[in-house]
Amino acid sequence: MKADIGLIGLAVMGQNLVLNMNDHGFTVAVYNRTEKVTKDFLSGNASGRDTILGMTSLEELCRTLKRPRKIMIMVKAGMVVDSVISQLLPFLEKGDIIIDGGNSHYPDSTRRMKELSQKGILFVGSGVSGGEEGARRGPSLMPGGNPEAWPHIKEILQAISAKADGDPCCDWVGEEGAGHYVKMVHNGIEYGDMQLIGEAYQLLAEGLNLDHDKMSSIFKEWNTGALDSYLIEITGEILAFKDTDGLPLVEKIKDSAGQKGTGKWTGIAALDAGIPLTLIAEAVFSRCLSSLKDERVKASKVYAAPEKKPLSDQEAFLKDLEQALLASKLISYAQGFMLLRQAAAEFGWNLNYGAIALMWRGGCIIRSTFLGAIKTAFDDKPDLENLLQAPYFKDIIENSQAAWRRVVVQAVNWGIPLPAMSSALAFFDGYRSARLPASLLQAQRDYFGAHSYERLDKPAGEFFHTDWTGQGGGVAASTYSV
Amino acid sequence: MKADIGLIGLAVMGQNLVLNMNDHGFTVAVYNRTEKVTKDFLSGNASGRDTILGMTSLEELCRTLKRPRKIMIMVKAGMVVDSVISQLLPFLEKGDIIIDGGNSHYPDSTRRMKELSQKGILFVGSGVSGGEEGARRGPSLMPGGNPEAWPHIKEILQAISAKADGDPCCDWVGEEGAGHYVKMVHNGIEYGDMQLIGEAYQLLAEGLNLDHDKMSSIFKEWNTGALDSYLIEITGEILAFKDTDGLPLVEKIKDSAGQKGTGKWTGIAALDAGIPLTLIAEAVFSRCLSSLKDERVKASKVYAAPEKKPLSDQEAFLKDLEQALLASKLISYAQGFMLLRQAAAEFGWNLNYGAIALMWRGGCIIRSTFLGAIKTAFDDKPDLENLLQAPYFKDIIENSQAAWRRVVVQAVNWGIPLPAMSSALAFFDGYRSARLPASLLQAQRDYFGAHSYERLDKPAGEFFHTDWTGQGGGVAASTYSV
Repeated sequence: MKADIGLIGLAVMGQNLVLNMNDHGFTVAVYNRTEKVTKDFLSGNASGRDTILGMTSLEELCRTLKRPRKIMIMVKAGMVVDSVISQLLPFLEKGDIIIDGGNSHYPDSTRRMKELSQKGILFVGSGVSGGEEGARRGPSLMPGGNPEAWPHIKEILQAISAKADGDPCCDWVGEEGAGHYVKMVHNGIEYGDMQLIGEAYQLLAEGLNLDHDKMSSIFKEWNTGALDSYLIEITGEILAFKDTDGLPLVEKIKDSAGQKGTGKWTGIAALDAGIPLTLIAEAVFSRCLSSLKDERVKASKVYAAPEKKPLSDQEAFLKDLEQALLASKLISYAQGFMLLRQAAAEFGWNLNYGAIALMWRGGCIIRSTFLGAIKTAFDDKPDLENLLQAPYFKDIIENSQAAWRRVVVQAVNWGIPLPAMSSALAFFDGYRSARLPASLLQAQRDYFGAHSYERLDKPAGEFFHTDWTGQGGGVAASTYSV
Repeated sequence: MKADIGLIGLAVMGQNLVLNMNDHGFTVAVYNRTEKVTKDFLSGNASGRDTILGMTSLEELCRTLKRPRKIMIMVKAGMVVDSVISQLLPFLEKGDIIIDGGNSHYPDSTRRMKELSQKGILFVGSGVSGGEEGARRGPSLMPGGNPEAWPHIKEILQAISAKADGDPCCDWVGEEGAGHYVKMVHNGIEYGDMQLIGEAYQLLAEGLNLDHDKMSSIFKEWNTGALDSYLIEITGEILAFKDTDGLPLVEKIKDSAGQKGTGKWTGIAALDAGIPLTLIAEAVFSRCLSSLKDERVKASKVYAAPEKKPLSDQEAFLKDLEQALLASKLISYAQGFMLLRQAAAEFGWNLNYGAIALMWRGGCIIRSTFLGAIKTAFDDKPDLENLLQAPYFKDIIENSQAAWRRVVVQAVNWGIPLPAMSSALAFFDGYRSARLPASLLQAQRDYFGAHSYERLDKPAGEFFHTDWTGQGGGVAASTYSV
């Protein structure tokens, strides 16, 4: 019997992808370095499935696969991926396909695609999102790399992927490391969405002093409107979840967040690209701050919160908060797509923004109806410069602007931190400012460093230097040269 | 005649450092790749100084220097530095000292120190701040690298450096790339200070509609108080500066800011270190946003600003703004020193925080009386965990907290972006929050990814997983493994 695809690495994600593929009629050959894991899988979750084939070596795996071979690797990102690839190579032939479904950093995927391309092997780096559940029932898949691979893997990947309104949440992303880049931005947006929800929760808990069942019902109600999304849904469930003592479990959990690094990568990519991805950066930094638990507890005893005046109209505030959350979320996605656009320009990738929105529309952690609107915006105008220019988003922002400001003002007065929501508002106010104080900044740079500046009344690209003190030279010199 | 020190690279910074050294009685041998630059310097700015010696080759330069040779390189950061070093090596002996005074990235300086150490050459990477003026009259110098070099170069570097209350703004920073790391953080703080001043200017100009002479006088007044600093001082001068037509020059300057990359490096270093350096990151992103001038102008026509209600008490607002600026600045420096502390731990550097504050106290762009207070805070308590715990800073924050909130609220209502000031406030409110919503975030991560969490009622390091839906397994599995 020949297998349709091979999968290496049988941790939860790998196992669930195998079961998912098998559910869709594909014969899967599986391999794990520790053989016991394979045996346990075959006698456990995969028991009774005779089209899941356990392999005891990579050689056997490769011998068992139909050609061109399609092998998905689900191992820890980093050097382990390179190690598995080099162990596979002796048993592969030209045209065979390797799919890395781990959380690899996009420069690694670009490198691997190039290296393997020279050997005739087609490499695909695919983002896989949706966690265990997604892997089992339909993940969001973001494959990129060698375009020649796509026709061979399209059927399997689209079959196992989530569907949104019948469309698969999996399409070809682009060249080189584009698949993992898009997954990275997805994860950054996930950081942002989670931070925004956390800020709303903090306002409900600390500002309004609501109990957890009430908070749960608010999130469940929000989930019926424009905020309809997986993360809002599970937040409603988490807040209602009781510990064995009948008290809300969430309050027992240490408020100190870890990270796997992809949010950090997104922030670094934005800094490198020169794109103001403020909301995601604030979300990453908020996790860093949360981890300083001991220092925070100490500081809470030193610095008093401002006196807290109760709200006159709680219901009105809840409506405002829903609007603020939506507007902030919109800013985050606008920033994310700004980064994708810059990456496409910088790396020469052909990114299909509408398809990316559709890939995120279902299956993954950030899935939401909102992403359907983003897809529509790009369908309507494929060369859309910025989501903030799309009519649907303009309407949301205009309708929510006043509410958004009221929420931020209230939080500032209460002393409740809203790093993401307030940063989003500052970004929006900057984005819609024809005039920013960077003129003064350029003057300062010219004053102390002779960096020169452009003038509004002269063509771009013409630079001027002023002898501000009457003492310096008239030369706008570069600071260093040989 | 033997020279005390050699200097390679005669652009403005190099020339001015040479003149500065010569003023202090040192004989300097100078070399520039393009010989005409050397000749022009000798017959121009250096004319009449017979202890500045023009060299036509690196060999001649090395022959002319006293031993151990001390050679300062002032060339463009990057590969040019490596190139100059490799050209120098054939003419150097063990114990000779190379000082890179360019804006090098700290990992490069760490690498160079290690490589040259193996050859017996002592490498020093020194931050040099203060621009042309500083280089000429006394820069801030931040040397780090091979500690064996310090006794040999201390006299010259401290002689030419700025002095603050009689103390040289130059001291040994630490091992490897520590000097350039500290310079990088300095530059990040410079980005933050400039952004904060820009935000104050924006409020004065767009919020209060003040004319430029009035704005200038406000900054000049602020410069007599706790904000006393070089950047506030030159802002007062810039705002009063008139173009040839008698109108304020700053309004003619294009509000689109460039960057040389060191602010970006600081943001990336913070993300890598896991330190919430929010203010500087917002400052870098603000420059990015400013550069999208065309898009902003377009957006300004689409999105209306909120209706602007005039202030009831302008003088009170000006006092509030001064407080808000000071409090935000304090947060920025607290964050900067958090990053330094983390870097010291991570790289095993022995950083003297008080000495660093003193190095920045004079000579450089961020010089201020405020840094004297930071030095005092570290003198009083060398193991100070965070500047926010020092009494002087606690007093400032407590006195200014209400004013700071009023300014941010006013800006939000006006629709004037304060990315740095509002981010600083959100950080402060997070820092003094014993409880942050990261508990919910950890619950979400455990819900969708079985990431597990710690509990407040259990010892740290013990991890729990909950089967939130009643459908998943009870196993808190790592997502990937081999």
